[in-house]
Amino acid sequence: MVSEVVTLEGHIIDSKVLANVLDDILSFGGEFSILEVHIGQTRQERSHARIEVRAESLERMQELLHIMGRHGVLWHAAEDAEIQLADMDGAFPEAFYSTTNQQTYVRSQKKWIEVKDQEMDCGLVHEPQSNTFRCVPVTAVRKGQPIVCGERGIKVVPFERTRAKGVFEFMASEISTEKPKHTIIRNIAGLMHDARKRGDRLLLVGGPAIVHTGAAVHVVKLIENGYIHVLFAGNALATHDVEQNLFGTSLGVYLDKNSLADSGHEHHLRAINTVRRAGGIRQAVEKGVITGGIMHACVKHNVKMVLAGSVRDDGPMPEVITDMVVAQDAMRSAIRDVGFVLMVATTLHSVATGNLLPAWIPAVCVDINPPVLTKLADRGSFQTIGIVTDVEPFFRSLVQELNSLA
Amino acid sequence: MVSEVVTLEGHIIDSKVLANVLDDILSFGGEFSILEVHIGQTRQERSHARIEVRAESLERMQELLHIMGRHGVLWHAAEDAEIQLADMDGAFPEAFYSTTNQQTYVRSQKKWIEVKDQEMDCGLVHEPQSNTFRCVPVTAVRKGQPIVCGERGIKVVPFERTRAKGVFEFMASEISTEKPKHTIIRNIAGLMHDARKRGDRLLLVGGPAIVHTGAAVHVVKLIENGYIHVLFAGNALATHDVEQNLFGTSLGVYLDKNSLADSGHEHHLRAINTVRRAGGIRQAVEKGVITGGIMHACVKHNVKMVLAGSVRDDGPMPEVITDMVVAQDAMRSAIRDVGFVLMVATTLHSVATGNLLPAWIPAVCVDINPPVLTKLADRGSFQTIGIVTDVEPFFRSLVQELNSLA
Amino acid sequence: MVSEVVTLEGHIIDSKVLANVLDDILSFGGEFSILEVHIGQTRQERSHARIEVRAESLERMQELLHIMGRHGVLWHAAEDAEIQLADMDGAFPEAFYSTTNQQTYVRSQKKWIEVKDQEMDCGLVHEPQSNTFRCVPVTAVRKGQPIVCGERGIKVVPFERTRAKGVFEFMASEISTEKPKHTIIRNIAGLMHDARKRGDRLLLVGGPAIVHTGAAVHVVKLIENGYIHVLFAGNALATHDVEQNLFGTSLGVYLDKNSLADSGHEHHLRAINTVRRAGGIRQAVEKGVITGGIMHACVKHNVKMVLAGSVRDDGPMPEVITDMVVAQDAMRSAIRDVGFVLMVATTLHSVATGNLLPAWIPAVCVDINPPVLTKLADRGSFQTIGIVTDVEPFFRSLVQELNSLA
Amino acid sequence: MVSEVVTLEGHIIDSKVLANVLDDILSFGGEFSILEVHIGQTRQERSHARIEVRAESLERMQELLHIMGRHGVLWHAAEDAEIQLADMDGAFPEAFYSTTNQQTYVRSQKKWIEVKDQEMDCGLVHEPQSNTFRCVPVTAVRKGQPIVCGERGIKVVPFERTRAKGVFEFMASEISTEKPKHTIIRNIAGLMHDARKRGDRLLLVGGPAIVHTGAAVHVVKLIENGYIHVLFAGNALATHDVEQNLFGTSLGVYLDKNSLADSGHEHHLRAINTVRRAGGIRQAVEKGVITGGIMHACVKHNVKMVLAGSVRDDGPMPEVITDMVVAQDAMRSAIRDVGFVLMVATTLHSVATGNLLPAWIPAVCVDINPPVLTKLADRGSFQTIGIVTDVEPFFRSLVQELNSLA
Repeated sequence: MVSEVVTLEGHIIDSKVLANVLDDILSFGGEFSILEVHIGQTRQERSHARIEVRAESLERMQELLHIMGRHGVLWHAAEDAEIQLADMDGAFPEAFYSTTNQQTYVRSQKKWIEVKDQEMDCGLVHEPQSNTFRCVPVTAVRKGQPIVCGERGIKVVPFERTRAKGVFEFMASEISTEKPKHTIIRNIAGLMHDARKRGDRLLLVGGPAIVHTGAAVHVVKLIENGYIHVLFAGNALATHDVEQNLFGTSLGVYLDKNSLADSGHEHHLRAINTVRRAGGIRQAVEKGVITGGIMHACVKHNVKMVLAGSVRDDGPMPEVITDMVVAQDAMRSAIRDVGFVLMVATTLHSVATGNLLPAWIPAVCVDINPPVLTKLADRGSFQTIGIVTDVEPFFRSLVQELNSLA
Repeated sequence: MVSEVVTLEGHIIDSKVLANVLDDILSFGGEFSILEVHIGQTRQERSHARIEVRAESLERMQELLHIMGRHGVLWHAAEDAEIQLADMDGAFPEAFYSTTNQQTYVRSQKKWIEVKDQEMDCGLVHEPQSNTFRCVPVTAVRKGQPIVCGERGIKVVPFERTRAKGVFEFMASEISTEKPKHTIIRNIAGLMHDARKRGDRLLLVGGPAIVHTGAAVHVVKLIENGYIHVLFAGNALATHDVEQNLFGTSLGVYLDKNSLADSGHEHHLRAINTVRRAGGIRQAVEKGVITGGIMHACVKHNVKMVLAGSVRDDGPMPEVITDMVVAQDAMRSAIRDVGFVLMVATTLHSVATGNLLPAWIPAVCVDINPPVLTKLADRGSFQTIGIVTDVEPFFRSLVQELNSLA
Repeated sequence: MVSEVVTLEGHIIDSKVLANVLDDILSFGGEFSILEVHIGQTRQERSHARIEVRAESLERMQELLHIMGRHGVLWHAAEDAEIQLADMDGAFPEAFYSTTNQQTYVRSQKKWIEVKDQEMDCGLVHEPQSNTFRCVPVTAVRKGQPIVCGERGIKVVPFERTRAKGVFEFMASEISTEKPKHTIIRNIAGLMHDARKRGDRLLLVGGPAIVHTGAAVHVVKLIENGYIHVLFAGNALATHDVEQNLFGTSLGVYLDKNSLADSGHEHHLRAINTVRRAGGIRQAVEKGVITGGIMHACVKHNVKMVLAGSVRDDGPMPEVITDMVVAQDAMRSAIRDVGFVLMVATTLHSVATGNLLPAWIPAVCVDINPPVLTKLADRGSFQTIGIVTDVEPFFRSLVQELNSLA
Repeated sequence: MVSEVVTLEGHIIDSKVLANVLDDILSFGGEFSILEVHIGQTRQERSHARIEVRAESLERMQELLHIMGRHGVLWHAAEDAEIQLADMDGAFPEAFYSTTNQQTYVRSQKKWIEVKDQEMDCGLVHEPQSNTFRCVPVTAVRKGQPIVCGERGIKVVPFERTRAKGVFEFMASEISTEKPKHTIIRNIAGLMHDARKRGDRLLLVGGPAIVHTGAAVHVVKLIENGYIHVLFAGNALATHDVEQNLFGTSLGVYLDKNSLADSGHEHHLRAINTVRRAGGIRQAVEKGVITGGIMHACVKHNVKMVLAGSVRDDGPMPEVITDMVVAQDAMRSAIRDVGFVLMVATTLHSVATGNLLPAWIPAVCVDINPPVLTKLADRGSFQTIGIVTDVEPFFRSLVQELNSLA
């Protein structure tokens, strides 16, 4: 469904223009919402209305606009977008168009062309041969590339929650601890089950609290049952997961007794050192050094892992990408075919993922700390549903619900 | 085990006094900890040591102190406590002794007498006939009652976590979200199971989030399985529990779909009105108006309920005690034979209960919001173990773990 | 401004009914918003529109509806509200109308009558002599009183944020820690200054953290400068305020050094006992026992205090109302002429106050803990603006800003 | 002060060995604490005591141990530490000694040598020519380097809070919102003032909430007044600071009105692009593109900035170090001469800084969100004092207090 806002001006009420236009839209099979009607306060004053018109496709919309034009309906005639050549590497021209995470079309050679690799806070690079447009981060700009500038010839089709009925209708928009979690988890299980059935890839973005709270065993089950195809995490998740496999502890705490191990604070560094000596996580799994846990399951079940470093990392593990520009690119390419995202107990990687995700990919964010979810919402990841709950019971229930669906 | 701190002074090192005293203690079967040794910086200066001595019982301690006295060991000779008569109703004499929640003895007629109804922030009333002492809140003082004043002749035997080995040793003292909850819940289940076996009564202190999060069904199972004998709550828990039974909602939200009911915000007031019309919760259960939920289970299984009002209550329900002094007295008498306390999702009633509980009753406090637990700890309920987790999954796991023990 | 939603049905587009109706409204000096237009998908199908019409007063609205009626505009003809007599004390008839905190009119003898003492979660009692309607809590119902039942003949005029422009326009609706607080505090100061100028009474609802964080000195200045006329609090604020005056501590912590006093945990109980011995806070101030602090300032400046008890209180202070039904009534009567409310660091009393406040009284709620504000919002106090910040700096800045306005 | 724990065994009580040893220590001018006395339960059984002995310097300690040795005092004779050569780049030998953030000595050639560049979670590399030891992160290990292995010949001298009297004595150890913040802030001002007087460098570790909350103006004053010499931050602080200078907004919100700007969500990306076009922050300041704010003040006053990237960055700004291993090295070298650390509103950079800091550098961490401070404490930064308060008022009070000291 494509929408366009048109503006009518003049004596549109008395003269039946409004009535006729609405009639046209309906006759054509379109839909409309009346956004605004300002009617002249005197008879001489002109009236004014803004109507959102919806049609099935851009082609149908073009036709409908043509028809409506006969009534003198006015709107800003679409013009081709303005293109400027980048004048340097690593920066856009000053007037560059800054992208959102919504579905975007650029008008070029009188046609509306859907943007590829949609991502917020990027610029749009034109590829003249194919007449395509692509989101590109500022670091990737090269001198001479044609960049879309200004707002002209750009159409953004916002993601509508209502279109997602059946997906998110069960979810209240507010972030609250006082909600029936079990119902919500059952619905998430349904979404994941459906996504897997459709052949979508599922992405887990996870923080080390998964291991600290004893939930790694549940995540392993999700991987074994084919519910996770991509994992975004940092050095900490990998490290404490391996620590748990090698020493039975996470941050030095025995998970089965909740007591501190002697010299337990060293375990995570020893885990890192052991894996570095083995040459990497994959190698450590293959050599039998790592025998269980999330990392082991990822290697065994070919889960695509992107481990992105951070400035607080010890080590890091060899697979951790230490350069952030490289890490973002790795996440970008891994995210392209993902159809559902589950983010758990990590602000850093959740925000990073939210930055890269198009608005139409459903994402669920779970954290026990409400400010994390507020932060995600503040940063524009509107499609994310936030759930305030505890990590380990969340995953336990999720596994149970998925089992009951299988 | 009773402990006493004794002070040695003089040339206790050179003259072998310290060595002899320690030898005496061990010969007698006692134990000691050397708390402090200050040794004179010149040969002329006197030395000084403080030793905590432990014996099996007060009687044995008296004997041991007698023996140690032969070496010239000094300590403040115990004198009988000072008593003053209350000079007015509803207030203590200025110099009154203010109680803690620790086991306390008062010396009277040269004997150490254990205080009854131990409770913090009370005074001690003497009953001369029986020569007993009892904790009494300031509101209950009557003119002419003999009240303990000053610090003389008072002995407090602090509750030691170490003595509670097997009970709380599995629990780290810090309040953190990043802990292996499952292990902790399994241990709580063990404690509850043991308490029930011993014939102790179990107290649940609960807030309305139990209903909002969909956990009422689990609490009903705990009641049915004999794991809850006393319930402390407020009007809100009762109201939303009945609301759920009558309308399927909690605060107007359908628990099975997490969506708002039409006019759902009225449901809680209609629930209150309906129960008031029936004459009370018990009557509504008996008449078949209320057919399920926590209130229903409490009535059916003779759980002792104390519903204490608060200034934010709508209604309230008829069983809710609106006068706080009366409510505290009801809680006091219901708490006397309780051996284990579970506090969930209510700051108000948890703090109120913590105020009344002696320090040696194990209590577990569960809340998703860490500041609640900090607040409890700040108010001196040291015996309370805090767990940051989500209410519904907590109860679900607890029921599962208890089932596996049964 | 009064609004009414009217429904048009029939061939309203083709036949120019819609155009004519809109024209009428404008000619009459009214305003409208088109809420919904469903237009028949075939020519035979009837269309349907819902329009919100606004007029200056109920009288003008009646006229306008009369005019519009000539075009066959349909709406549910207003009928008089249904009245039933209460069949028992302390409960409404089953079908009672449950109130909101919005401005409400009841139709009686063909006139729309504004409800008095507007308050949410009440019923409406009719007083036939004066033909007036009043909100009454369930506890106050007496057998034989005429009670409004059902939804017929009730009109609710929702409070519009937009009407409050100049009041709350500077405030974002979200609760977030990452906001420019200083700007917000300056605006609150402006609101308080304006309210005082208009002669409105200002209400402070406060918790003990005001004293714990060292902010009592700022609150005293607000009282001295005439910015607080009513105080709602509990036993804890009063107690720790007096404790600070008598002992220099709050919960046993010296405020000027942030260190624990010896036996400091007894101070609050000794403060309570001392005031009880004096006969009350007022008497203790008059006798010179209490020489400073918030309680002292309230007595000296005739601030109306309502201290409502709670089940966790020690003591309590003599002025504390221990019966919650009595306390709510005291708050109700004190709130009637209040024009601005500041709620700080107390969930319990803030929710209680929110329950009693009509929606059009501006209220600002300050707490460092975001869930408190979420809880307030969840309970329907929509008019409350939440600010996540720290208590002492908040009051310090507020006093500075008010000084700069004076 | 250097401490050593010695163990005495045998009939140390009866035979006066213990008395004589304590006498020796005092005669020598040393101090002791009796850690443990186990006394044989029968006369035949040997007794056992552990005593912590303290002397002024390692040299004096050696002498004292020699003296005590005459009484047959036993302790594990110090041996030189074990050294193994690294067998590969980027990893330690399996048995490596894992460092803490406490002052550490390594015994080599019969001397105790203080470790350089003390940092937790590193290994110790030996430099044979100078016979020195240095903390080295795992990434920096090169094949053939001599690495300390095992626990032998290592002495750790823990930082004692008590030694820091006058520094932190005013601070309660708990993290609580209910504390007198003003007193605490005054004391922090005192610490900063003293540090500057001593010629110590002061480090600010800051997050973007400094800008969002409107506190940048206060930080600029701290810089201008010489209270900040080093700044650790990320791309977000730099970006929103420049955004505020260029557009008047932070994350698109106008700080002086708390309202959203049109297209405000683009501002941060446009700020980044503008600075990238200028060649960097320094160049943008020099060219007059950036005319105020924190970045401007840092450039003008030669504050050493380390901006470390993260995976959620847009852009980033040219000065941001995108490789985390490089960023940690830059932080390491900038931290060496820092004498006081203030961490505000950033978990990521605070934990990263805590990882690098030796335990004896005083650090204050300010956040409105208590879990951040819990997280810091959980990760072993024991020297950090946590304060739960709001960022903007904190800085405002800090500037006022520092002005009153100047």
